[in-house]
Amino acid sequence: KHIVVIPGDGIGKEITTAAVKVLKKIDEIYHIGLTFEYQYAGGTAYDKFGTPLPENTIEAAKKASAVLFGAVGGTQWDSVEPALRPEKAVLGLRKALGLYVNLRPVKVQKELCEYSPLKPEIVTGSDILIVRELIGGIYFGDKCESEIHNGVERAWDLENYSVPEVERITRFAMEAARKRKNKVTSVDKSNVLATSRLWRRTVTKIAAQNPDILVDNLYVDNCAMQLAIRPTQFDVIVTGNLFGDILSDEAAVLGGSIGMMPSASIGELTSLYEPIHGSAPDIAGKGIANPLATILSSAMLLRYSLEEESAACAVEKAVDAALEEGWRTPDLYKDGFKKADTNTMTEVVLQYIK
Amino acid sequence: KHIVVIPGDGIGKEITTAAVKVLKKIDEIYHIGLTFEYQYAGGTAYDKFGTPLPENTIEAAKKASAVLFGAVGGTQWDSVEPALRPEKAVLGLRKALGLYVNLRPVKVQKELCEYSPLKPEIVTGSDILIVRELIGGIYFGDKCESEIHNGVERAWDLENYSVPEVERITRFAMEAARKRKNKVTSVDKSNVLATSRLWRRTVTKIAAQNPDILVDNLYVDNCAMQLAIRPTQFDVIVTGNLFGDILSDEAAVLGGSIGMMPSASIGELTSLYEPIHGSAPDIAGKGIANPLATILSSAMLLRYSLEEESAACAVEKAVDAALEEGWRTPDLYKDGFKKADTNTMTEVVLQYIK
Ligand SMILES: CC(C)[C@H](C(=O)O)[C@@H](O)C(=O)O
Ligand SMILES: CC(C)[C@H](C(=O)O)[C@@H](O)C(=O)O
Repeated sequence: KHIVVIPGDGIGKEITTAAVKVLKKIDEIYHIGLTFEYQYAGGTAYDKFGTPLPENTIEAAKKASAVLFGAVGGTQWDSVEPALRPEKAVLGLRKALGLYVNLRPVKVQKELCEYSPLKPEIVTGSDILIVRELIGGIYFGDKCESEIHNGVERAWDLENYSVPEVERITRFAMEAARKRKNKVTSVDKSNVLATSRLWRRTVTKIAAQNPDILVDNLYVDNCAMQLAIRPTQFDVIVTGNLFGDILSDEAAVLGGSIGMMPSASIGELTSLYEPIHGSAPDIAGKGIANPLATILSSAMLLRYSLEEESAACAVEKAVDAALEEGWRTPDLYKDGFKKADTNTMTEVVLQYIK
Repeated sequence: KHIVVIPGDGIGKEITTAAVKVLKKIDEIYHIGLTFEYQYAGGTAYDKFGTPLPENTIEAAKKASAVLFGAVGGTQWDSVEPALRPEKAVLGLRKALGLYVNLRPVKVQKELCEYSPLKPEIVTGSDILIVRELIGGIYFGDKCESEIHNGVERAWDLENYSVPEVERITRFAMEAARKRKNKVTSVDKSNVLATSRLWRRTVTKIAAQNPDILVDNLYVDNCAMQLAIRPTQFDVIVTGNLFGDILSDEAAVLGGSIGMMPSASIGELTSLYEPIHGSAPDIAGKGIANPLATILSSAMLLRYSLEEESAACAVEKAVDAALEEGWRTPDLYKDGFKKADTNTMTEVVLQYIK
């Protein structure tokens, strides 16, 4: 059970340190036999090795039972050429590890309802799992930065999906829904895009093979509306790479603080777990970052990569308990609560782990 | 001053009838000399002529001073082959008339704040103009419904923008901002897409030629978040066809009722005005549809196509007055308000036109 930890840039080091403490405490109780190894990625890797994603990191990640990822990026790398920017580490790891699905649960806990921009009567009870295809679509299609076409300069990107790609992600969504509320909403733009029409045809075929799951289809523009008007209507949302990028960020903020939102990127060999928030260069090194999204990501790691369901629940319950007790990091702090820095919050969570 | 009215399907007839009444009243006061002509589009046109967009409609629209459009679509045309579906009328008219920009103002009036899914302290004061490119990008790029590639079936769509296309829409956004708060936010996905990198390069060039306008750039996923967390930060948002489709629908619902949201699609020869809501087949023919989005679209028609600014303001003020007096169509009705059907609401607005 070997975990490769990639802290990355900015607050990445602080938040992965917190999550590793939690995993070590879990290991003491559940005797999983965890070992840890650290690797570089992002701007920090670029500064040290001239590339945001060193071969060593890829090789180590490939062999790992799971990867715990912090965050990458920072303004100091803004002028680095596109191919060497920190975010290339993210895209490169997804491709190298074949992480074909990105899972983002958005569950609005009662304690955190007040942090949502949505009215409580609209958002309360939302419990959505976004299943985003992660290594296909327009992200990885052919591209052209500049060419002369009909006498003018243009650029292009090829959106595309194959039937097997759509089948795989749709089957994943069906399985996930079966453990939840048996509903899958597939999101596309099939009134305009040929790729979406193939997507919808394929989803419809897989739906017929899963008659116990209620499957419906929404256009992406309508979905962007529905997430804001009636988020409680959703169970599992399955969609392509680009639409998933946009909708999962929208869903994340509707859920309240993005400082609380974990994610899992599942591959055939290994999987990667990371908070959805960024590297927050403005507060890096101050010891005040909210570690909970990364700690909750480590719970997903226990669940999906190590199949340690009760250990995963123990972590999630400890986070709930810390919030119920009124502990808040500065991003969520309001009068009447107990202020915690990264360390304090981590210690509180550790205490509640049974 | 010849207006071509295209009621379309569903509630399209009722809401355009209401807006035409308003335009006729305006004409009595402002002596603009309006004439009206009716044309078919959508499912109704398909049933009558076998095509959702008859040549007659295109020819009439091309010669008009402006087009007032209702809405198209309905479940009875769901099984019609894709190329003949009602929405093809929308895409076809955009292309035939060269409607290169779609303008959607989202202004949160105090009276309507309570209809927003967002908390009042977040949404109050929002005043956003979305400037969406409408005849380019992946909507009109080459497509392939099905081909065998590397032994598997796939489909594809080509996202693409040329420098002149981006220049034109960006200049439009700059002009619009100059009449507002001098700020333009360009939205792209330049950390992933080549087309977005050309988009951003071109926006940056045009920005340098407009030093009085504050220009910034956001990734589309971040923009989907920011619209929900802090919508008041925006003035003008400029973006491509697909991102504009998603973001303008998200922005519309955040603003409150989509039954209130007008739009203008501007072309070089003529322009088209329509509510952003759909044809609402479920309430069609009942006389209860909210006509205000279409009435406000006719105000945009007066402003942009006929340059009748004071007439446009007169319509907008009359709508405000009707709302302030507590009149509400069923979609917005709550205890304590005065209930109005389509006709009553239209009569109330007519009364307030000075
Ligand atoms: C950093 C960026 C390339 C990435 C994406 O667009 O996938 C991010 O937005 C995400 O959602 O993980
Ligand atoms: C009907 C559809 C093709 C259209 C679009 O995607 O542009 C609609 O969603 C809109 O925004 O006007």
